[in-house]
Amino acid sequence: MQEKLKKINSKPIGIFDSGFGGLTVMAAVTKLMPKENLIYFGDTAHVPYGTKSKKIVTDFATKISKFLVKNDVKMIVIACNTASAFSLDYLNKIIKVPIIGVIKAGSVMAAKITNNKKIGVIGTEGTVKSNAYEKEIKKYDSKVKCFSKACPLFVPLVEEGWCSGKITEDIIKVYTKDLLNKNIDTIILGCTHYPLLKKTIRKVIGSKISIVDSASAVAAQVKEILEGKNMLKTTGKGNYQFFVSDSPEKFKAIGNKFLGDKILKVSKVEIN
Amino acid sequence: MQEKLKKINSKPIGIFDSGFGGLTVMAAVTKLMPKENLIYFGDTAHVPYGTKSKKIVTDFATKISKFLVKNDVKMIVIACNTASAFSLDYLNKIIKVPIIGVIKAGSVMAAKITNNKKIGVIGTEGTVKSNAYEKEIKKYDSKVKCFSKACPLFVPLVEEGWCSGKITEDIIKVYTKDLLNKNIDTIILGCTHYPLLKKTIRKVIGSKISIVDSASAVAAQVKEILEGKNMLKTTGKGNYQFFVSDSPEKFKAIGNKFLGDKILKVSKVEIN
Repeated sequence: MQEKLKKINSKPIGIFDSGFGGLTVMAAVTKLMPKENLIYFGDTAHVPYGTKSKKIVTDFATKISKFLVKNDVKMIVIACNTASAFSLDYLNKIIKVPIIGVIKAGSVMAAKITNNKKIGVIGTEGTVKSNAYEKEIKKYDSKVKCFSKACPLFVPLVEEGWCSGKITEDIIKVYTKDLLNKNIDTIILGCTHYPLLKKTIRKVIGSKISIVDSASAVAAQVKEILEGKNMLKTTGKGNYQFFVSDSPEKFKAIGNKFLGDKILKVSKVEIN
Repeated sequence: MQEKLKKINSKPIGIFDSGFGGLTVMAAVTKLMPKENLIYFGDTAHVPYGTKSKKIVTDFATKISKFLVKNDVKMIVIACNTASAFSLDYLNKIIKVPIIGVIKAGSVMAAKITNNKKIGVIGTEGTVKSNAYEKEIKKYDSKVKCFSKACPLFVPLVEEGWCSGKITEDIIKVYTKDLLNKNIDTIILGCTHYPLLKKTIRKVIGSKISIVDSASAVAAQVKEILEGKNMLKTTGKGNYQFFVSDSPEKFKAIGNKFLGDKILKVSKVEIN
């Protein structure tokens, strides 16, 4: 029995994203649970999801989730805000292992932190249009008011490596101006790329507004769920596998910027 | 015989791009040849191509070209610099109708215009890494020196509608600084989105450098080829069909900004 449990617990956690961004979630998970085995899937053939339709993003997310289940994961983390917003409800119905997304975790944390009940949400066009954060936050506390803003330039800024500097500060000012005018006391970084802009966002918006990073929030939720099901891996060191749908070489090069040279081997798979 | 020729000539020209950008090429073609029927395909499920691998871009481009041939086009224009750079040689081997890309047209025009034989090329990461413009320019005039710079923020800037203003000027300054230091007298806008930034680029780089817009250059080449084969449509008004691989609604909304409300109906097709 003990052996059987150990075998189940050593199954990997599956994490997926449209590309590199979800590696901030992976980094948070490995920091909190360094013993867990992980499989990461980056859908680099279709990146970005943020500007695409609900139907096609759900189609991509379904294929990836089935791939992860075939690879015997014990749970799935949707480390992409757009896919969480569009596809979590559907995937929960068809996937048999526990599956969670970044949005609920970030929403609950922000709703707990806010004092004046005014929360700002920044994310991709898809995430913002879906109102997914607002819906989750209202479930937790219906009195909270949410104000959101799509920031389509943030992902290319991060991928260009322009995480600080005058131009980046100016762009952050444009995108956050309306939110600051609404007197928010908390802001959710509703896209997995944005933690890399956190310091510069802090510089622009000042020290009084709490910044909620959904990558850390979801990692805490993963731990809670696995603990609750007695499924944490408690011995040994975690090993990591990486799969992508386009060039493995590029993923390895950029990915190691996110993850501090932990990516040794990346395999390409077709998910069509 | 006359009737048969007329029937062939009324076949549409096929134009494809990863998304919206190729609509600047379509606009140039309709302006020069308003009688031609056109089919446009925007691969919005996979946009952008500029950051993806040669292998996968060629795979997408092949499927789209076959779709256009099935729809009985008389020639194909690759209105995407990345796909032209990566896939034109291969497509020329397997596709039976004439097929041209934006790169050759822009290269020849720039090589004709330059006086000091120093040309700058700006484009996506894929186009710049491929050195496709330089290779084409050298075929025409081996003495020309080319200097290139990838500008990954330009496409999202255009799609965000930030085609002018202080931030856009600052970003253009950063990207063009090294090219200007090389004393170029001609610059190629090596991405179909960039014509929408032309005025602001002009403001930043001054009036002495010639700007070559490959959309206009390729339209002229299309006309030359069709004239040469006696395949121009000389009567009636052109009609336009639009196909995309993701949401037709979004394509219609953004596309009409590029094309001045000429997009009436857009159909979604699977090209997998």
